[in-house]
Amino acid sequence: MSELFSADEYARRVGRTSERMAADGLDVLIVVEPANLYYLTGYDAWSFYTPQALVLGLPDGPLFFTRGIDAPGVLMTTGLAAEQVIGFADDYVQQPDRHPFDVLAAELRGRLRDAATVGLERDAYYFSPRAEQALRDGLPGVRFADSHELVNWVRAIKSAAELQAMRRAARIAERVMAVAIDVVQVGVRQCDAAAEIMRAQARGTAEFGGDYPAIVPMLPSGPGTRTAHLTWSDEPFAVGEATVLELAAAYRHYHCPMARTVFLGTAPDELRRTSEAVSEGLEAALAAVAPGVRCEEIEAAWRATIARHGLEKPSRIGYSVGIGYPPDWGEHTMSLRPGDRTELVPGMTFHLMLGMWLGEIGMELSEVFCVTEQGAECLASFPHELAVKS
Amino acid sequence: MSELFSADEYARRVGRTSERMAADGLDVLIVVEPANLYYLTGYDAWSFYTPQALVLGLPDGPLFFTRGIDAPGVLMTTGLAAEQVIGFADDYVQQPDRHPFDVLAAELRGRLRDAATVGLERDAYYFSPRAEQALRDGLPGVRFADSHELVNWVRAIKSAAELQAMRRAARIAERVMAVAIDVVQVGVRQCDAAAEIMRAQARGTAEFGGDYPAIVPMLPSGPGTRTAHLTWSDEPFAVGEATVLELAAAYRHYHCPMARTVFLGTAPDELRRTSEAVSEGLEAALAAVAPGVRCEEIEAAWRATIARHGLEKPSRIGYSVGIGYPPDWGEHTMSLRPGDRTELVPGMTFHLMLGMWLGEIGMELSEVFCVTEQGAECLASFPHELAVKS
Repeated sequence: MSELFSADEYARRVGRTSERMAADGLDVLIVVEPANLYYLTGYDAWSFYTPQALVLGLPDGPLFFTRGIDAPGVLMTTGLAAEQVIGFADDYVQQPDRHPFDVLAAELRGRLRDAATVGLERDAYYFSPRAEQALRDGLPGVRFADSHELVNWVRAIKSAAELQAMRRAARIAERVMAVAIDVVQVGVRQCDAAAEIMRAQARGTAEFGGDYPAIVPMLPSGPGTRTAHLTWSDEPFAVGEATVLELAAAYRHYHCPMARTVFLGTAPDELRRTSEAVSEGLEAALAAVAPGVRCEEIEAAWRATIARHGLEKPSRIGYSVGIGYPPDWGEHTMSLRPGDRTELVPGMTFHLMLGMWLGEIGMELSEVFCVTEQGAECLASFPHELAVKS
Repeated sequence: MSELFSADEYARRVGRTSERMAADGLDVLIVVEPANLYYLTGYDAWSFYTPQALVLGLPDGPLFFTRGIDAPGVLMTTGLAAEQVIGFADDYVQQPDRHPFDVLAAELRGRLRDAATVGLERDAYYFSPRAEQALRDGLPGVRFADSHELVNWVRAIKSAAELQAMRRAARIAERVMAVAIDVVQVGVRQCDAAAEIMRAQARGTAEFGGDYPAIVPMLPSGPGTRTAHLTWSDEPFAVGEATVLELAAAYRHYHCPMARTVFLGTAPDELRRTSEAVSEGLEAALAAVAPGVRCEEIEAAWRATIARHGLEKPSRIGYSVGIGYPPDWGEHTMSLRPGDRTELVPGMTFHLMLGMWLGEIGMELSEVFCVTEQGAECLASFPHELAVKS
């Protein structure tokens, strides 16, 4: 498989991470979030269901810690050397009386300088209280600190190569959404629609294949549109009902999510009016994007626009997006919401995600945009209108 | 959508959980693992990327805590009443200075008896050190204890209705594997094979649709078979190479995993011999299954058999299986490995998963079996032979 990123690009990523570690007073950083591991090393396998970590800041260079049977995969997908990869014995897997990070702590004992400050991703997926406890118990002389989303913040501004990957994801997302809107028909089972959507996600294009998105297709239908995050059932789509398609495509784990809404039959006036207002709000939010503008200002532009239509939305309207592994394609850094005063910088990428739940019915519309010197550049191209199929 | 389980069955599940809580000295249990939430309430949505919990043992009955936009989904998929569901405000999502479990702690403050002992699933997926910290900081008078895999153990013995769901998953798994072996051909891209596999997983049968398995298709090919857990690339399958198909099907989140190996061309003698030995070892392991037999004895039967062929396997050969959400379909309770002295009981279900990594090439073969009075009942029916396509 062709290399997506040069060794130089990986070195720059690790270098920027080291700079942030120094600024935050961290000697060592234990990275556990799968998207961060992929970003820093290229490591890619479904091994995150057992504990794994990349340790940065050690005198001998980065150390990758994983289950023994996964260690060959680290050597196959990264530039790390064999002596940088430690595989733990299989009898540490899922045991009540011992934890793989007991082994990691033992490995680090001789490698850490005295009184080192070690950063932990204390709110990362796949990092449990027991895992942290194993490190604390095994390294009693060490000072631990919450590194928060340090690497996630390094990921916020995308390189040219990353934007290329996201544009490829956008090409796939356009196809996926076309397939989805086509397959949602009266009498078709939701599971059969999901089947065609996932098929399109993986096929990608003739030039490049698709990867698995961090979230499976969400397609709440009928009464299900009253809430977020429902997946599918084997019930058929019915006339007179809306279906929300919250989908994505991924290319090598870089995501382009896309949400649209379909209505089978004659759409209720409220849904039509809401869709038009949301589309107008989306345009207003995109028009507000420029370098130096703050995240909360994008939300304010949206809010002012939909308020003129008597609408309001209590939840955030978007977030930073890029690499994703289950369960989330968001980066957990910037959000488009009141109070987020982060200034936009060219190369940042957001999923502007407008989900409206109106009591009896819901709808969604979204775009992924990149911040450029000229404003927002939408990565995908797909009509914004409510898709009405009568 | 038809109800899979009766209200009585949910009540029995909660009742057995309460008994174990009492036995372990827990007044209250905070359940966070998505599979456990589904088991105890039927709650089903892709909302586990933000914190959520079911609290058992409170004077007023169970309490479900989730993000505000997900609260309607709890009411739609469970028997809980509106006053039992608390949705947290959206500005607690992914913030460095506050955590949703600050809100949960505040909600629990008035509801907990003095000096209550509260169990936490301290090694569960989607429960982070920061989440635990929020509970400890917000409930200073409470004694916290690690409940370990308490609910997972309640899940170990399946009811008749659960076995019915797993048999449906097995019917889908047979179709999925047939599609997979058919589509792996010289020149076909791995991503296109994954596409057909995922399509078959979701379609299910004409009578019942498929759900998303907890793990995407893993299909390491060629050199990729040297390691576990690789997913797919957009490279084509090549003649002279093995492909390991580690797949599953799910019906309403109940899983039937299935692994087989395909070889394109003339299979090397070592791979053929290993496959035959593994198949013999699998039969020996299945023949050892009976009520009262210990988990480690199943592994011993396998080990003795493959040793006669000069083979050994350092990792476990199976684990308890049932409900799964990403990232794992295993239940994290029993493993088929030395030292696991759990006695088999009718209704337990295992994924007997034989992965052999031989240096330059690897292969896998697996079966899901249920423990019955008569021995092992394999849920799926699919040939064990290495699939050689010349």
